[in-house]
Amino acid sequence: MTNHRGHLYGIGVGPGDPELLTLKALRLLKASPVVAYFAAKGKKGNAFSIIETHLAQEQTRLPLIYPVTTEPLEPPLSYESVIADFYDTAAAMIGEQLNAGRDVAVVCEGDPLFYGSYMYLHDRLAPEFPVEVIPGVCSMLGGAAVLGTPLVYRNQSLSILSGVMTEDELRRKLADTDAAVIMKLGRNFDKVRRVLHELGLADRALYIERATMPNQRVVPLAEVDPMASPYFSLLIVPGPKWQG
Amino acid sequence: MTNHRGHLYGIGVGPGDPELLTLKALRLLKASPVVAYFAAKGKKGNAFSIIETHLAQEQTRLPLIYPVTTEPLEPPLSYESVIADFYDTAAAMIGEQLNAGRDVAVVCEGDPLFYGSYMYLHDRLAPEFPVEVIPGVCSMLGGAAVLGTPLVYRNQSLSILSGVMTEDELRRKLADTDAAVIMKLGRNFDKVRRVLHELGLADRALYIERATMPNQRVVPLAEVDPMASPYFSLLIVPGPKWQG
Ligand SMILES: C[S@@+](CC[C@H](N)C(=O)[O-])C[C@H]1O[C@@H](n2cnc3c(N)ncnc32)[C@H](O)[C@@H]1O
Ligand SMILES: C[S@@+](CC[C@H](N)C(=O)[O-])C[C@H]1O[C@@H](n2cnc3c(N)ncnc32)[C@H](O)[C@@H]1O
Repeated sequence: MTNHRGHLYGIGVGPGDPELLTLKALRLLKASPVVAYFAAKGKKGNAFSIIETHLAQEQTRLPLIYPVTTEPLEPPLSYESVIADFYDTAAAMIGEQLNAGRDVAVVCEGDPLFYGSYMYLHDRLAPEFPVEVIPGVCSMLGGAAVLGTPLVYRNQSLSILSGVMTEDELRRKLADTDAAVIMKLGRNFDKVRRVLHELGLADRALYIERATMPNQRVVPLAEVDPMASPYFSLLIVPGPKWQG
Repeated sequence: MTNHRGHLYGIGVGPGDPELLTLKALRLLKASPVVAYFAAKGKKGNAFSIIETHLAQEQTRLPLIYPVTTEPLEPPLSYESVIADFYDTAAAMIGEQLNAGRDVAVVCEGDPLFYGSYMYLHDRLAPEFPVEVIPGVCSMLGGAAVLGTPLVYRNQSLSILSGVMTEDELRRKLADTDAAVIMKLGRNFDKVRRVLHELGLADRALYIERATMPNQRVVPLAEVDPMASPYFSLLIVPGPKWQG
């Protein structure tokens, strides 16, 4: 242990296009002796892939590998407890580096504080270590840019929802907003599309997969295969155009 | 007129800190023969100030000066018609450059499609000219980063609201969301704070002025002077912490 503790940087790397990195993110990434990232077992991790080319050999890579939970868990185990343990362990690994006086950059797809896994490390480490968050371009804005659609005008409201919500909840919240973004589609796609039709919003809704990534795809709502909507997809219901 | 028309670039320059510009925004800005920006009369414009140091002398600056509407307008004039005329004129000025074969970059504070004035140019010019939007870090994410607060966890909903909404509307929408961001405070601050208190959300709410700008200020909710809340301020009600 040294006398000074390292800084933790939570760094947003944008929705996919490596050019959507900010100047600040790039500067801090290059200066961080340790770069940590979340990844599924056997994979490189989306955020890490975005920034990999900027790293030098001598920088330490610290992968944080999500636990695999395909088997049903026996009580007292639950998804919640397994994932909490995982974040505890990941935070401890990073804490060790910080205590040794090394700065750690945790890279995060999009923005770190907007539904990012980084938040669970932040909540554990920010009370103890010096922390700075570098905001990034979030996925909904990457999606709107690719689709070329204004998202919300003037004093319109915008609701950001999750496909995981129940049909009732989605219906109620979509009925009381001017504009909406729906994330985490995947297997929830069919349910979400049904609600959009019911509310007469289907004509306005725009769907995009992997916005700003090399394999990005814009598909008309009616043509989306509900069994094949990938994790990195979202729906935008733009606010009604304001003729300023 | 030449044979090829110029490209229009709607460029997000982030919430204030010039280092929050993306690599793509910087590249396109430097390459654009014409750089347009919105500004109040006699002012430089916030977006322009953020990027000014990157411009070369030979690049044309094209200020788009907002009309001043301090006097009450006589019918058939209205705020709506005056501002529509202004956007028509601004779009025509840019259209002239594009028709002459020159690329035009319109710089926009935060993200261009997230409540940005750029949207009104986009709606007018995108049907006729090749257009590309470069997303930026929006103000609410700049604010969350400075405050160091996770904004929304897992499948929580996030509502983005405007202080201009009526008290009833604010109350109803705030009561049916997990997390919220309230923009356009200014003279609406007092009303918004009252609603937050009524709903028991005041303890969770965080207020910030000019996030990531040199004169940024974090003020506890109770201490905000409702007569002095500036245009560039926002409130964040983070989603309840999820103990992952
Ligand atoms: C755990 S959240 C992470 C959000 C991220 N922190 C951000 O700022 O956008 C994952 C969800 O974000 C959305 N998402 C992330 N990147 C995307 C992209 N490039 N294109 C479309 N959707 C994306 C998808 O809806 C996905 O289910
Ligand atoms: C016309 S909207 C522009 C939003 C911008 N396009 C964005 O992406 O954030 C203006 C409102 O954005 C918010 N805002 C913009 N920049 C801000 C900053 N640096 N700090 C706090 N609030 C800001 C304020 O609520 C302000 O009333």
